[in-house]
Amino acid sequence: MIREKSKLKILRQKIHIIIYGTNTVAGRLFDLILLGLILLSVLLVMLETVQGFDVKYHDQLIILEWIITVFFTLEYVLRIAVTNKPLKYIASFYGIIDLIAILPMYLAFFLVGTKVFSVIRSLRLLRLFKILNNPKFSVQSLHLVKALKASRGKITVFMYFVLISTIIIGSIMYIVEGEENGFTSIPTSIYWTIVTLTTVGYGDISPVTPLGQFIASFVMILGYGIIAVPTGIVTTEMAKSTTKKPNINNNYSCNHCDAEDHQDKAKFCYHCGSKLVEN
Amino acid sequence: MIREKSKLKILRQKIHIIIYGTNTVAGRLFDLILLGLILLSVLLVMLETVQGFDVKYHDQLIILEWIITVFFTLEYVLRIAVTNKPLKYIASFYGIIDLIAILPMYLAFFLVGTKVFSVIRSLRLLRLFKILNNPKFSVQSLHLVKALKASRGKITVFMYFVLISTIIIGSIMYIVEGEENGFTSIPTSIYWTIVTLTTVGYGDISPVTPLGQFIASFVMILGYGIIAVPTGIVTTEMAKSTTKKPNINNNYSCNHCDAEDHQDKAKFCYHCGSKLVEN
Amino acid sequence: MIREKSKLKILRQKIHIIIYGTNTVAGRLFDLILLGLILLSVLLVMLETVQGFDVKYHDQLIILEWIITVFFTLEYVLRIAVTNKPLKYIASFYGIIDLIAILPMYLAFFLVGTKVFSVIRSLRLLRLFKILNNPKFSVQSLHLVKALKASRGKITVFMYFVLISTIIIGSIMYIVEGEENGFTSIPTSIYWTIVTLTTVGYGDISPVTPLGQFIASFVMILGYGIIAVPTGIVTTEMAKSTTKKPNINNNYSCNHCDAEDHQDKAKFCYHCGSKLVEN
Amino acid sequence: MIREKSKLKILRQKIHIIIYGTNTVAGRLFDLILLGLILLSVLLVMLETVQGFDVKYHDQLIILEWIITVFFTLEYVLRIAVTNKPLKYIASFYGIIDLIAILPMYLAFFLVGTKVFSVIRSLRLLRLFKILNNPKFSVQSLHLVKALKASRGKITVFMYFVLISTIIIGSIMYIVEGEENGFTSIPTSIYWTIVTLTTVGYGDISPVTPLGQFIASFVMILGYGIIAVPTGIVTTEMAKSTTKKPNINNNYSCNHCDAEDHQDKAKFCYHCGSKLVEN
Repeated sequence: MIREKSKLKILRQKIHIIIYGTNTVAGRLFDLILLGLILLSVLLVMLETVQGFDVKYHDQLIILEWIITVFFTLEYVLRIAVTNKPLKYIASFYGIIDLIAILPMYLAFFLVGTKVFSVIRSLRLLRLFKILNNPKFSVQSLHLVKALKASRGKITVFMYFVLISTIIIGSIMYIVEGEENGFTSIPTSIYWTIVTLTTVGYGDISPVTPLGQFIASFVMILGYGIIAVPTGIVTTEMAKSTTKKPNINNNYSCNHCDAEDHQDKAKFCYHCGSKLVEN
Repeated sequence: MIREKSKLKILRQKIHIIIYGTNTVAGRLFDLILLGLILLSVLLVMLETVQGFDVKYHDQLIILEWIITVFFTLEYVLRIAVTNKPLKYIASFYGIIDLIAILPMYLAFFLVGTKVFSVIRSLRLLRLFKILNNPKFSVQSLHLVKALKASRGKITVFMYFVLISTIIIGSIMYIVEGEENGFTSIPTSIYWTIVTLTTVGYGDISPVTPLGQFIASFVMILGYGIIAVPTGIVTTEMAKSTTKKPNINNNYSCNHCDAEDHQDKAKFCYHCGSKLVEN
Repeated sequence: MIREKSKLKILRQKIHIIIYGTNTVAGRLFDLILLGLILLSVLLVMLETVQGFDVKYHDQLIILEWIITVFFTLEYVLRIAVTNKPLKYIASFYGIIDLIAILPMYLAFFLVGTKVFSVIRSLRLLRLFKILNNPKFSVQSLHLVKALKASRGKITVFMYFVLISTIIIGSIMYIVEGEENGFTSIPTSIYWTIVTLTTVGYGDISPVTPLGQFIASFVMILGYGIIAVPTGIVTTEMAKSTTKKPNINNNYSCNHCDAEDHQDKAKFCYHCGSKLVEN
Repeated sequence: MIREKSKLKILRQKIHIIIYGTNTVAGRLFDLILLGLILLSVLLVMLETVQGFDVKYHDQLIILEWIITVFFTLEYVLRIAVTNKPLKYIASFYGIIDLIAILPMYLAFFLVGTKVFSVIRSLRLLRLFKILNNPKFSVQSLHLVKALKASRGKITVFMYFVLISTIIIGSIMYIVEGEENGFTSIPTSIYWTIVTLTTVGYGDISPVTPLGQFIASFVMILGYGIIAVPTGIVTTEMAKSTTKKPNINNNYSCNHCDAEDHQDKAKFCYHCGSKLVEN
């Protein structure tokens, strides 16, 4: 009896290492299969919306989806069974995503209507975020996130300026162009302003009157110019975080010869060789 | 009698603190309500232009607008009554905006015609600038404004080049494509050039002849390339204002020969060899 | 007789100062009037192409043009008469432009046909370059030009890569999409590729087949990404030319104490005060 | 007999110098002619697809193509005959390209059908890569490639984020706009998202519903903002590779304690105080 329990315990531990760990071959293989299945499930969600494809391979798609759902359900159950803090996992970001990813298929039994159905199934896409759990990505993105965080304040102010400009320009264009030229309301005009300011330029709405075209030209040049601002902010922050000025310690100088710019790890003055003492 | 006057004085002081100050809870609450009302009034201006919405909720919109107008009027009157320099406030930028924001509704009684009406009401959007009065914003934007100001000179020259290019390319395209392909006049051609050079690309006008498409390709690549220039200018200015030029000590000059720009570690003037003394 | 000659000489000198100089009030006024007339003449060229406007004010436009042409002719003649090296002026860049700007109106007598006429008249736009003669502009643009020149080499290589990519992607899209979807020939496909790669996106030609849209998505992301390259090049060059590392001369060190990083103008070692001798 | 062999050997050597070398006049002339023929052959591939042109000059195009093909064939044969390691050349990147460039014309005898024909002929465009073999280009592009390689890691993470965003936004837009507004499937929606996020904006698909336009506005501003990220990455890497970290001398380490990163002016090891000797 005790032996069986111990066996179960060992099995639990083994599964824990495979599911949560990334150091063993089995653990890495599990992660790879999981990643593949996530991508496959995302692909399935996409393909189901392609009319021609869905008509032809409807049954195969449904079968594949059920296989994936069963696998994800198994994984979800195992993750809870194997961990020592199941509630912590269930309440965690990735725990919730895992649940959301498997629920739709079961719910789909009760809810009918393609629209609602596809909405719910799309929730499986959230699983994509799981890949970000990958340590390789999190390490690599740390630097980017840091630079973006540091530039958050300035970018907020910049965005605020852009937003005000957008509202004011949109209102002016609504008055200038009017409803007969596609600027049917101020929100629509603001939409046009954003389309123009960001240099997207669909052309679904475009100014017709000479004055409107003149203002539009101004908006375009403005948009062309202000793209420099977020770029400048982010670049500066990135440059700051990379040029570490690696080992220069500006705080103390040599007592003997007053030489400065000693490296952080310096114990002796690089110029005269006398011992360095912190001032 | 004197006591009443003193009471009034205290009340006036209290209101002054609430309206103009940002340090007390009441003051901050007032600012928050004001901000909310400004945004609400902006939203109202927008919604009135949405046909379907305006028809349905016309009365509610009007009532809400009057409430906001009355509040803004009250605020305007109080600001004048409470300050010691009422004329200074009235003539100030924000004083004028405050007045412009409340006038339209009263004027709307006398002026009829939707177009004129909506033009005037849109002036209320100027109130948005009031949010910039927020110290948080002004501090944050200081850095941006400084960098932009420093790069003003170069950006002006750049803009001038762009403008000349625009005129010349526009004229060439007018001749190449001609009126039958949508390039109806040189101003229209210039409008097209700006649409292309800024990579907006509506597609309302696009070259049809092979030569026109060739020139257009050239313009696009030019536009794609020269976007680097304002970005480079702004980034450089931002980088300059953040990196502190550590080694150069600008604070003192040589007593003997007036040479400046001594390095931090300099003990002797690099120019005349005399000992440096901090001023 | 001699006195008359001397008077003429003085007059000639005075006109020289006014026309060529920028230091006197009259000289600056002359430049300002000239600038105004150039802009006016550019405006005239534009307005003549606006159908409605030209019909209404045809006579006025013609009269104004003749006035400007006469003024420019006078200026041209005076410039030749007043300078000591007339041939040098005539053969100079601005001399040729000045001539080209006045010739069209005289030639217009002999050449008939609106198309040819407008082509020739547009040559007057070249006068816009005269404004660049302004010392203020030339000083300001020096920095920009220097940074662009320094990055010329890298930008050429970059452009070459872009061009090859453009040709290859264009050919692939021609094969994938084919003539029935608007990609009528490889040159047209290349035009589409440039429109897409530079993120202009007119939409006059856009991929229809799924594979075409997939490749287009790839091209867009590529275009979005590689815009970083010219920006990076120019920014780096600008940063280099502004952070002057102002006066650091790395070539020689103090003979006495071996201290380095002496500023360019340094005659004495900043560390020990001994005289510096170039090695 | 021996003399003839020796003559052949000398001829072989001479041709080797002309074909492979770039130091002699003949060698440079050969490279120039080759470059011209490559560009001409690329031009021919293009022109053949221009309907009007092909009809008019079909025979001339075919003749020119055969001339070029024969020249390229001769060059290919000579390259093999002349080199000492013919297999190495045949298996090399440029050897394969050379073969691919000449094969199509010979294959065209057996394969009929314009589509297949033009596909195969387009392979000749690969020859364009040969120009990159030019030492001038390879030296110049080294810097760019280095900066891009160094930023590869961060750009991959960035691209991954963009891809996930693209999939999720695409799915949302598919649900919001639906098939009746052009968002016929999730892949199509993703295509639209990329068109918008990269600020290309064809306008072949554009949001119609207010909610769709609101989300689109958000996507555009996002796209406008995140363009700063790759630019920031590349600029930072370029700046890093150009600024030489002047003070750090990585070439020698302390003989006594193996400490590295000594400053250029260091005479004594900053770590152990022993005198530094260049290795």
